[in-house]
Amino acid sequence: MKLSDIGEFGLIRKIRRLSSHSSSRTLIGIGDDAAALRVSSSALLLATTDMLIESVHFDLSYTDFYSLGWKSAAVNLSDIAAMGGIPRFCLTSLGLPSHITAEQVLDFYRGFNALLRVHKTALVGGDTCASPHGLTIGVTVLGEATKRGVLTRAGARPGDRIFVTNTLGDSAAGLELLRNAPSPNPLPSGERNKKRGGYQSGIRTLIGRHLRPNPRVELGRSIALSGCASSMIDISDGLSSDLAHICEESKVGAEVAGSSLPLSPALVEQEHHLRKPLLQYALSGGEDYELLFTAPPARIRKLRAFEASITEIGVITRGKGMSLVDDAGRKRPLASSGYDHFRPGKGRPQRASQRMVRHSPI
Amino acid sequence: MKLSDIGEFGLIRKIRRLSSHSSSRTLIGIGDDAAALRVSSSALLLATTDMLIESVHFDLSYTDFYSLGWKSAAVNLSDIAAMGGIPRFCLTSLGLPSHITAEQVLDFYRGFNALLRVHKTALVGGDTCASPHGLTIGVTVLGEATKRGVLTRAGARPGDRIFVTNTLGDSAAGLELLRNAPSPNPLPSGERNKKRGGYQSGIRTLIGRHLRPNPRVELGRSIALSGCASSMIDISDGLSSDLAHICEESKVGAEVAGSSLPLSPALVEQEHHLRKPLLQYALSGGEDYELLFTAPPARIRKLRAFEASITEIGVITRGKGMSLVDDAGRKRPLASSGYDHFRPGKGRPQRASQRMVRHSPI
Repeated sequence: MKLSDIGEFGLIRKIRRLSSHSSSRTLIGIGDDAAALRVSSSALLLATTDMLIESVHFDLSYTDFYSLGWKSAAVNLSDIAAMGGIPRFCLTSLGLPSHITAEQVLDFYRGFNALLRVHKTALVGGDTCASPHGLTIGVTVLGEATKRGVLTRAGARPGDRIFVTNTLGDSAAGLELLRNAPSPNPLPSGERNKKRGGYQSGIRTLIGRHLRPNPRVELGRSIALSGCASSMIDISDGLSSDLAHICEESKVGAEVAGSSLPLSPALVEQEHHLRKPLLQYALSGGEDYELLFTAPPARIRKLRAFEASITEIGVITRGKGMSLVDDAGRKRPLASSGYDHFRPGKGRPQRASQRMVRHSPI
Repeated sequence: MKLSDIGEFGLIRKIRRLSSHSSSRTLIGIGDDAAALRVSSSALLLATTDMLIESVHFDLSYTDFYSLGWKSAAVNLSDIAAMGGIPRFCLTSLGLPSHITAEQVLDFYRGFNALLRVHKTALVGGDTCASPHGLTIGVTVLGEATKRGVLTRAGARPGDRIFVTNTLGDSAAGLELLRNAPSPNPLPSGERNKKRGGYQSGIRTLIGRHLRPNPRVELGRSIALSGCASSMIDISDGLSSDLAHICEESKVGAEVAGSSLPLSPALVEQEHHLRKPLLQYALSGGEDYELLFTAPPARIRKLRAFEASITEIGVITRGKGMSLVDDAGRKRPLASSGYDHFRPGKGRPQRASQRMVRHSPI
């Protein structure tokens, strides 16, 4: 059977079934942002891995190596953040085509290490080898759970309110602007070049959100420690996709108020340069690396400590569907904009051109 | 600077320097078979990762998917064995070209899981995505150290005796035979086909050692627990290369007695079908996934428990060089047959055609 017939998620289900090894040490295995593993009576380890492949996950014609390193770290740190965990250690694998220079590899590691330093995470090992085709990057991040334990995708209950951190859609808008940008390297490479390019600051902000996202590690940890949240995921595929993951794992539905979605001033400012309505970037743009979480109404008061960086966007419902609600209270179905790696043509048409990185935890 | 100018090991040294993040939690970081990480007051975690790229590390024209899965697990389990550790958890990433079928991916996981089950290791997560070029495999294995701690490459002292487990050279000979084999799929795929092909059993044994190596997990753990060994590494690059790693990290030299190298009956039986002297397969063939370790003379007596599966092959010396000693006591320099991923032409000429997999821990 072709991969395009079974589809990515069909394949993952089969792999999951083949691999059901029952171990009392595996608290959370295949299927969440990270695995949660009992490594001693006192330590709960989180582990996540992602592969990034040239021309699938990134495009070197508009991505500098410093940003690529930064983002490779960010994608994985964000998975630890989504469990409410604390990243500690990291391993990398690089498959390097012969045209890549040593300086480019070192620039990759400068960007990678810069973000690791922010989150006090140590690069402890890896692998490096030749690649006959494109650049291939493998990253594994290990973290630890807080004493409160981990937040999974499976705890949302009807009536819980839905929240997101910061703003949505910036990264997807940044990618669109980047593809139309005149310069091949619109962000200065790290500390060595503090000068700003000729871009308007709004454009720079959006492009920066795409090339060098900030995983919400501290915020995720604080939300987990507050004990308010019932489920959490990071927004890598786009709000509608990642909310669908929570709904599926929690066996619930959801209603999202379209006008409540938090948009950045930069996104609003650039509306006239963008091809689609802003709501579409926020709903299905992807690669926000923000956090999406749910909390029961009784515990919402305790979330006030985070009110500067979180927004309530909807409510968890009984049943299975997701709806988008407008200001007049009209509901329309909200489909997951999920992109299938093995049949990209079958996703919503704007997806393939809209974003590059997508990861399915098996 | 081109990668071929700086070379693989020059690049790794630079990455190591860039990434020096001092953390009291990192007991062993970049540069050994696996990292050793303090995750709680009682738990010492081992972590290793490898990337396997089609046409660099494996060739699908003579590797079946079951064997490829098995071997992808073996390569990483062997790194945990080399530290004397116990593998516990595993994560995989697959980059899949569109011509790969779902059955092939599931066969990969059947082989992968078969070896994980032998070593009671759980597949707990991963990532799956499309690859525009070849098949790419990323594997991370997490393990725990025994209470005796970990065995590194750095503890060998002059006078220590050098030992290897089982036999050497079988895998490299198996690869040579496999490349000359008439059938494209000389090993039956897992449990589903117990019938033997038309090969002589000696050829089958050697090919089996190449396609489905058995990492020496139990033996490595027993050697570590015995407290006899002063250093250990797994033989992935070939005896001369991996002994050179021990010499470099321990700042010592070594003498190896050529006639003492353990050869399997299958290798000896197939000598007339092989192109090179048997000693060359044993010294520099690579991919044996046996263990190479050193032990001080005073502790050798305690190694008798393992005498069926270990062989003394030489002695650690002062100074830096390695020598090969013949039966008449004549010494000649023994060079590391190290293959450089970024300048394969500069290695010993037989290397490139002799073996496929090579991993440099960064």
